[in-house]
Amino acid sequence: MTELRGPVRIVGTGLIGTSIGLALARLGVVVELVDGNPDNALMAERIGAGSRLVEIEPQLVVVAVPPDHVGAVVAEQLEQTDAVVTDAASVKSKPLADARSLVPDVSRYVGSHPMAGSERNGPLAARADLFDGATWAITPHATSDPDAVDLVRRLAEACGARTVELSVEDHDLGVARVSHLPHLMSALAAGTLADAPASHLELSGQGVRDVTRIAAGDPRLWTQIVSANSTALTGLLEQIRGELDRLLVALGKEEANDELTAILGQGVSGAVRVPGKHGTPHIDLVTVLVTIPDRPGQLAKLFADAAESGANVEDLRIDHSPGRPVGEVELAVKPGSVDQLVDVLTDRGWVVHT
Amino acid sequence: MTELRGPVRIVGTGLIGTSIGLALARLGVVVELVDGNPDNALMAERIGAGSRLVEIEPQLVVVAVPPDHVGAVVAEQLEQTDAVVTDAASVKSKPLADARSLVPDVSRYVGSHPMAGSERNGPLAARADLFDGATWAITPHATSDPDAVDLVRRLAEACGARTVELSVEDHDLGVARVSHLPHLMSALAAGTLADAPASHLELSGQGVRDVTRIAAGDPRLWTQIVSANSTALTGLLEQIRGELDRLLVALGKEEANDELTAILGQGVSGAVRVPGKHGTPHIDLVTVLVTIPDRPGQLAKLFADAAESGANVEDLRIDHSPGRPVGEVELAVKPGSVDQLVDVLTDRGWVVHT
Repeated sequence: MTELRGPVRIVGTGLIGTSIGLALARLGVVVELVDGNPDNALMAERIGAGSRLVEIEPQLVVVAVPPDHVGAVVAEQLEQTDAVVTDAASVKSKPLADARSLVPDVSRYVGSHPMAGSERNGPLAARADLFDGATWAITPHATSDPDAVDLVRRLAEACGARTVELSVEDHDLGVARVSHLPHLMSALAAGTLADAPASHLELSGQGVRDVTRIAAGDPRLWTQIVSANSTALTGLLEQIRGELDRLLVALGKEEANDELTAILGQGVSGAVRVPGKHGTPHIDLVTVLVTIPDRPGQLAKLFADAAESGANVEDLRIDHSPGRPVGEVELAVKPGSVDQLVDVLTDRGWVVHT
Repeated sequence: MTELRGPVRIVGTGLIGTSIGLALARLGVVVELVDGNPDNALMAERIGAGSRLVEIEPQLVVVAVPPDHVGAVVAEQLEQTDAVVTDAASVKSKPLADARSLVPDVSRYVGSHPMAGSERNGPLAARADLFDGATWAITPHATSDPDAVDLVRRLAEACGARTVELSVEDHDLGVARVSHLPHLMSALAAGTLADAPASHLELSGQGVRDVTRIAAGDPRLWTQIVSANSTALTGLLEQIRGELDRLLVALGKEEANDELTAILGQGVSGAVRVPGKHGTPHIDLVTVLVTIPDRPGQLAKLFADAAESGANVEDLRIDHSPGRPVGEVELAVKPGSVDQLVDVLTDRGWVVHT
């Protein structure tokens, strides 16, 4: 069992690197902070993520630089130190291939991917608890030293994450499916709205808001992410193109037909497999709709009343239909809690629909 | 000014027809309920949406049957009555063309589209307030009688909706863009997950959940909706195919490139145009993140504390990252309310991040 004693060198003090520094610092591990941008490193030091100059050899180096540079920095750190080296990039094949092309021996390198993030960037968005309970993928390659794998697992656990071990290829295909492809589909759907007349956008409902939300992400960062995973993504996009052609043929018949229903049915089969809250695959929750006046304090009153019923609200959503003077809140609860919740809310004067 | 006096005949007592009946009944308008399925009509009558047998001529007929049958039923009602006839289908060109092919004079027909719905179906899901503040599109055609247009507008207003007048073609292109195309893109993205290994789905985050949510909708209903709007949708899907090909070429270069960034940038331009809450195009809201233990009463406490700060929570979202023992709530508030909200929440012991 390899212990994580430190020092740990963190190269790249953006959101992820600084958050790892904060998480390790709270455990008393010595952290060295390195960043090409001295302002970032200074900022990270000031908020307590480590120190800029540490005069000892690191046990572990964490490379948390932008995706394009990961492989080169990993290779550099393998050459400059005797440390185990890991990275935090969201794609694993390319950094490994890049590092391999630069140094002969990559056995001290083990890729990893902490699956937590934020729409906010930079050291100021960092938090010691960013990874608490998050999934952290560990992706050993054929020549990874088992002790190095172990040490990287200790790092993830020290940050409070739950580790999942996958091969490099399997990881990249997985994130292509559940992250990169959805992002590209969202971007393509949103792209058709860029030049749409305003009168069309007025007809928007919750569906288009959900589908296009992630398309607002930083195009430069996403360019790096998707190019680094181009092999896995190309296969999936070709599959999408095949389905799109099938869809165009089916729509061309102008009448409702079984082919269309089959394509849409395939979508249902996929959608219901996406895990919900806390990784539980698809708990059956019941939705209770409550009409709510749009003014301060109403949500507080609603949740106080809901809590008194003893029901745990597992999920919620506010409906934003344009022009509605009142809002609507969807509360999702376990089936056993529904009756009591509805009774209590109705008693307190809420307009409730199940 | 045409007044809506009734009687109103509603053909089709599903969610939409029965909700219109309930809304009119609360105003004292006489409503006749007709449905091919006698159980549905009986159910709608029992919950107070109208009566099954009314012995007088209707002033207005509302056709709220499944999309495929709308044109035929509209034609039938134009022949059997002297009433103004409208429908509630989500696509407007096809019902009009179908009705025109069956009766010589469609001047008493004016299409309309109440843009409210629910994931629930049938008369039991109906509510008198379903349309309160919702958008209701009115789509006159070239030969629509102006009095008929006026009467349909009165119907929408009587149901509490905000009317928007659009041509039939413009309406269908608009809903193709903001509803049908997003649905198909969601279905295609979700479809790739149907046969994915479970280990890939374990890597799911909020993005894929948002993008695939609407793909879970009833495939038979959506087959009818998208086939009825095949012309507008085919044009958009061909545009998507062009962009998809461009994306495949850009990804094939394997290096991050400007072409990729341009495609993603187009997605950003579209995503930011989707209107937010209450139809306001894109209020600048600030997001405050609060960590919250997953047990009953915590949301109530959070919202009570938030309310005391005087901030109105404009939007909220619960983060469901798989495996997290604690949840995270995103509260969106106006910029002027942020400082006070953060101060009050921090004072009360909440872990808050901005």
